[in-house]
Amino acid sequence: MVMLIEFGHCHGITDIDWTCISMIKVAINGYGTIGKRVADAVDAQDDMEIIGITKTGPSFGCKLAVNKNFPIYCTSDDESKISSFSKEGYACIGGISDLLNIADIVVDCSPGKMGVANAEMYRRANIKYIFQGGEKHDLTGLSYSSSANHKSAFNANSARVVSCNTTGLSRTLVPLYDACGELTVECTMIRRAADPGDSSRGPINAIKPVLKVPSHHGLDLMTIKPEIKINSLAVAVPTTIMHVHSIIVDLPANHNFTTESIIKLWKNQPRVIVMNGNKNRITSTAEVMEMARDMGRKWGDLHEIFIWEDGVSLKGNRLYYFQAIHQESDVIPENIDCIRSMMGVEKDWKVSVEMTDSSISRYYGL
Amino acid sequence: MVMLIEFGHCHGITDIDWTCISMIKVAINGYGTIGKRVADAVDAQDDMEIIGITKTGPSFGCKLAVNKNFPIYCTSDDESKISSFSKEGYACIGGISDLLNIADIVVDCSPGKMGVANAEMYRRANIKYIFQGGEKHDLTGLSYSSSANHKSAFNANSARVVSCNTTGLSRTLVPLYDACGELTVECTMIRRAADPGDSSRGPINAIKPVLKVPSHHGLDLMTIKPEIKINSLAVAVPTTIMHVHSIIVDLPANHNFTTESIIKLWKNQPRVIVMNGNKNRITSTAEVMEMARDMGRKWGDLHEIFIWEDGVSLKGNRLYYFQAIHQESDVIPENIDCIRSMMGVEKDWKVSVEMTDSSISRYYGL
Amino acid sequence: MVMLIEFGHCHGITDIDWTCISMIKVAINGYGTIGKRVADAVDAQDDMEIIGITKTGPSFGCKLAVNKNFPIYCTSDDESKISSFSKEGYACIGGISDLLNIADIVVDCSPGKMGVANAEMYRRANIKYIFQGGEKHDLTGLSYSSSANHKSAFNANSARVVSCNTTGLSRTLVPLYDACGELTVECTMIRRAADPGDSSRGPINAIKPVLKVPSHHGLDLMTIKPEIKINSLAVAVPTTIMHVHSIIVDLPANHNFTTESIIKLWKNQPRVIVMNGNKNRITSTAEVMEMARDMGRKWGDLHEIFIWEDGVSLKGNRLYYFQAIHQESDVIPENIDCIRSMMGVEKDWKVSVEMTDSSISRYYGL
Amino acid sequence: MVMLIEFGHCHGITDIDWTCISMIKVAINGYGTIGKRVADAVDAQDDMEIIGITKTGPSFGCKLAVNKNFPIYCTSDDESKISSFSKEGYACIGGISDLLNIADIVVDCSPGKMGVANAEMYRRANIKYIFQGGEKHDLTGLSYSSSANHKSAFNANSARVVSCNTTGLSRTLVPLYDACGELTVECTMIRRAADPGDSSRGPINAIKPVLKVPSHHGLDLMTIKPEIKINSLAVAVPTTIMHVHSIIVDLPANHNFTTESIIKLWKNQPRVIVMNGNKNRITSTAEVMEMARDMGRKWGDLHEIFIWEDGVSLKGNRLYYFQAIHQESDVIPENIDCIRSMMGVEKDWKVSVEMTDSSISRYYGL
Repeated sequence: MVMLIEFGHCHGITDIDWTCISMIKVAINGYGTIGKRVADAVDAQDDMEIIGITKTGPSFGCKLAVNKNFPIYCTSDDESKISSFSKEGYACIGGISDLLNIADIVVDCSPGKMGVANAEMYRRANIKYIFQGGEKHDLTGLSYSSSANHKSAFNANSARVVSCNTTGLSRTLVPLYDACGELTVECTMIRRAADPGDSSRGPINAIKPVLKVPSHHGLDLMTIKPEIKINSLAVAVPTTIMHVHSIIVDLPANHNFTTESIIKLWKNQPRVIVMNGNKNRITSTAEVMEMARDMGRKWGDLHEIFIWEDGVSLKGNRLYYFQAIHQESDVIPENIDCIRSMMGVEKDWKVSVEMTDSSISRYYGL
Repeated sequence: MVMLIEFGHCHGITDIDWTCISMIKVAINGYGTIGKRVADAVDAQDDMEIIGITKTGPSFGCKLAVNKNFPIYCTSDDESKISSFSKEGYACIGGISDLLNIADIVVDCSPGKMGVANAEMYRRANIKYIFQGGEKHDLTGLSYSSSANHKSAFNANSARVVSCNTTGLSRTLVPLYDACGELTVECTMIRRAADPGDSSRGPINAIKPVLKVPSHHGLDLMTIKPEIKINSLAVAVPTTIMHVHSIIVDLPANHNFTTESIIKLWKNQPRVIVMNGNKNRITSTAEVMEMARDMGRKWGDLHEIFIWEDGVSLKGNRLYYFQAIHQESDVIPENIDCIRSMMGVEKDWKVSVEMTDSSISRYYGL
Repeated sequence: MVMLIEFGHCHGITDIDWTCISMIKVAINGYGTIGKRVADAVDAQDDMEIIGITKTGPSFGCKLAVNKNFPIYCTSDDESKISSFSKEGYACIGGISDLLNIADIVVDCSPGKMGVANAEMYRRANIKYIFQGGEKHDLTGLSYSSSANHKSAFNANSARVVSCNTTGLSRTLVPLYDACGELTVECTMIRRAADPGDSSRGPINAIKPVLKVPSHHGLDLMTIKPEIKINSLAVAVPTTIMHVHSIIVDLPANHNFTTESIIKLWKNQPRVIVMNGNKNRITSTAEVMEMARDMGRKWGDLHEIFIWEDGVSLKGNRLYYFQAIHQESDVIPENIDCIRSMMGVEKDWKVSVEMTDSSISRYYGL
Repeated sequence: MVMLIEFGHCHGITDIDWTCISMIKVAINGYGTIGKRVADAVDAQDDMEIIGITKTGPSFGCKLAVNKNFPIYCTSDDESKISSFSKEGYACIGGISDLLNIADIVVDCSPGKMGVANAEMYRRANIKYIFQGGEKHDLTGLSYSSSANHKSAFNANSARVVSCNTTGLSRTLVPLYDACGELTVECTMIRRAADPGDSSRGPINAIKPVLKVPSHHGLDLMTIKPEIKINSLAVAVPTTIMHVHSIIVDLPANHNFTTESIIKLWKNQPRVIVMNGNKNRITSTAEVMEMARDMGRKWGDLHEIFIWEDGVSLKGNRLYYFQAIHQESDVIPENIDCIRSMMGVEKDWKVSVEMTDSSISRYYGL
């Protein structure tokens, strides 16, 4: 059993040496699907803390922030908007400018199409900033994934954490590339059409191909690992819970891999889960997400990429495999690593990943 | 922030007076969808503890039990089956008989059709037992829901916690009955066709009426509250996340209710959430379950029944409303209350409910 | 086997006495989901013909019209729009005004929100007109369903054929009312969320209640049969193929019905199919629509309302039943009957229905 | 308009020279999803006729056969089974042996796992026979698709028409192969999980990979066109209406194709439809099937393979495209061609295809 003792806005495990004073002060601009998750993950770390989150108005998300003791700011500096929060019983401390003034770094999790304006605001506030994969690479010129290019973000002023799909590709392809030195990849992305909490989007009973061929997903991987040659095709299907990638990789002729040694390589990677689907009765994304719920992470999230061991097959130089991506959460720990790299705390990606993941696990009691 | 200190298999908050010694020893027979949830809820309580759970073999669920430090027993007493667990690295302490020997009460969460045999086993072991709503009323002769008939189970030797749908009906209809003295109810149940982790069942694109009319759901409510006259119709639809009830209630002519006062009555009930769907943008079960995920309970569970405030309408004596039921979890806290009543700990249902729910909230940090 | 002989724009069976000259000239304004079906049904009749259909521009639907030899007009009188059709290889004969000039009656099947403007246009053109159930009752002041009030439309200048759901309710409730003299009805409508050809609308995995309670569906029945007291509740579910109604009817105390005699009553109604679901393995709307496809009507349509015989149950004065509604097509034959009534051709609804349905059956070879 | 004159069990268009006497007598063993469609297609031809279909008992399908005037036989020779039909009002002429005695060829459309026994029965009856793609290649040793190997079946005694997916692959890959002389293909099949009339199978909300990698689909193409090197991966998704193939083809280095010339090649192929998805608002399989319904074929079938023109992309030697497959019907015309080849009527596949398709079009008025 477990005792919980709360003392202020500070937490930790006694055998780790830390002080509140040295913590990285993180602002979250936009507290929705991604923002609420990044905030929780920051809160679980020993070397960073949430200094404030923003909301456009006093909606349900404020309650979440209150439960977590996260200070609430308004996405605008307009006094009337700031004061509107109190009418619904929420304390709003100030506008976005007030928050940027006291933060070391801001993670932008606002909805699409605000990137250019927000980037300009962050630069004026002289603050480091991170965007998400919905924004274009050019906005920061530096796209990031923990396994692909952690060091590139070291002490950087701005970066973009790539999308859930690109993050998923980097988790399994980068280690292959590192071992082989050369890869040509084709990926068909079978995408969930809407998130679980979204009841407005369809299709209900159809498959919808992305008619831009190749799709942007493959190109996006090349922003973080240009050495990997990749194209992608995508279709949307009537499910809400995960994307699946059907991947074909051409290894160089002189590779020394077997199906088994590739599986072993992936099993040794952080944030990758490899399981036998038939033996474990995990034959679809439904059972994968059920396993994630069992793991006890908030929202039933799965930060890891899931590979079906019995779906991996190496035929000569050509490798086939399926992987499943939890679109709402796989980028969450990458944001933490990215903060750490940009703040100059930790240059080794595997060390940062270990710090991030063990803190999250400890916090959620896994 | 939060400090977590583990000391053995015992937990608590310092301002509550308890000792491990006096705890109710609960066995869980069957550690699946319901069993794993009941076990977690028992574990969160201060007056009871998990003395062991059973598995048929060394499958994935064992890992969950290990994470929670729950002793694992085998559903059989067969030595070869018991020893099979160690091959997969799990410690199996013994067979079901060993577990029943040391428990005060067993919660039967085994899959269907084992009720008669298991009940006989529990009687022979001279242990109190609880079945779930999948079994028939006659198996124990005492069906239970916290709000309907908590006292009936006081010191009882056996009981059956009614199904998710019946539990949902009792949460909102019993308080109405208590206030009015007479109700005639018609309910159309729009049922989810499969649970989220089940990828084998359909339909994918159809509505499937239950051709037994009236369906058994209404009759089942009368096993715990025979004073309420109710019939029900049911259809299954292609969704995995919640049931919805479309309910019509005839109040007695002399009722003093308004739409508003009925809403107020429900807002004051435990385990009922009443929210305005349009104002809060919770217009479907997708958004209800997203709110549940935000609440942070494990598995994204929603123990409460959800009523759309703007879907409640009283026209003369006839009341219309919709409610949503999380089929995997609404019966979980009822099992805890039922244990407490059967063990003679607490006769007042509202006191028990408060104990149960505050322990669960505290445990999960809500 | 079958011989098909085409002679011009005129068709028939030799043992029926008709001349092309006396035919009712029908214009279809809007050739989409409903319009294309009404046009085909008109074309199958011996006493009416399609004088023209309208399209906003030269899209795919024009091809359908060409295949059927239906003259194409533009929904606008704008010369540039009219001439745009020829660029895509379609002959557009003129604007809507040209069409209204030569038609006896126009069936408005245009998308929503154009009713007021179109009605004014039809009045100016001094032509009879029919709207569909998407428009409000007040637009024409006369709502219509074959079984409810065929005679009311006799020689009328304008009418509105009620929606698919209201049509479905009238098919089964009006004969009951006619036999009993008094009904009080509650209906829960389980609605398909999108049509089969619509891939943009959701929800994918949710149930969405209509938070206006009672919903408009019940009220709409009272525009054609005010004597029936009815309320309705509605939810949308993730399916594309049919609505299902869960209906509860209170018969007067002196009724002489049994479950069996009610089934017999419905079996004798036109446009109602009553089948045993378990015996015929038609246990969901999927199997109902498969039967409809087998029947060979174009688009796999089912003009009839489907009742599961084993889902009908009379308990005292209270009757329970389920019915399934093909939302794309059940109103099609009603439009034909409505034309016939408004044109003063046939006052007896059962005679008109027989004419309509036998022509459609003969035409499609059923 | 159209005049229909029925004279016995014989039909045709006057400008085609034919006599009933010379017709190929076709038996259909198994009158379900495929059987009923093949029967209709045979019935539409001028050089063949349905001599009888089989049913296991007097179920709904008999009604279909009666409507079409197809003689009904029992799948068994058991007298009691044969006589059971009359109790439900159907005339059953005899057992399967009686039917095989009078037929020239039998198309086996019985459900899976009966192939070996049925093949033996057909051999004993000294009759030609065709199996469907659900049976293994070895059963007949000759797999067939019209575009791949029509001549191989000329005068053959037995053949197997390949599955819907393999047929789809052959329609678009064989013409490419014929033009290039060499192809290496990778295909990810995104499969519908259940047919529209099947409400028992799921998943409702998941993606289910086929964990046998490569899947059998690619290998199956090599039974009819061994020169094409192909592998395939497959996932099942929650839709009922079509499969989608995401295809990658490596052309030989010396190919002279452009994206445009490949599109042109396919537009000239029979049973292939190439359309621009964005221009025609056909952006998913929902809209493809809606177009099929508009075409007026029975069951809303689409015999053609659908290619999205704007989803075709040639990058160097590598070609990308999507195609959609109507799993219930694309093999239907192939069965007709196969009959014609096996009966020694027509050796040229394009001539046979033209005969087959124009008869079907004429019959269904397209």
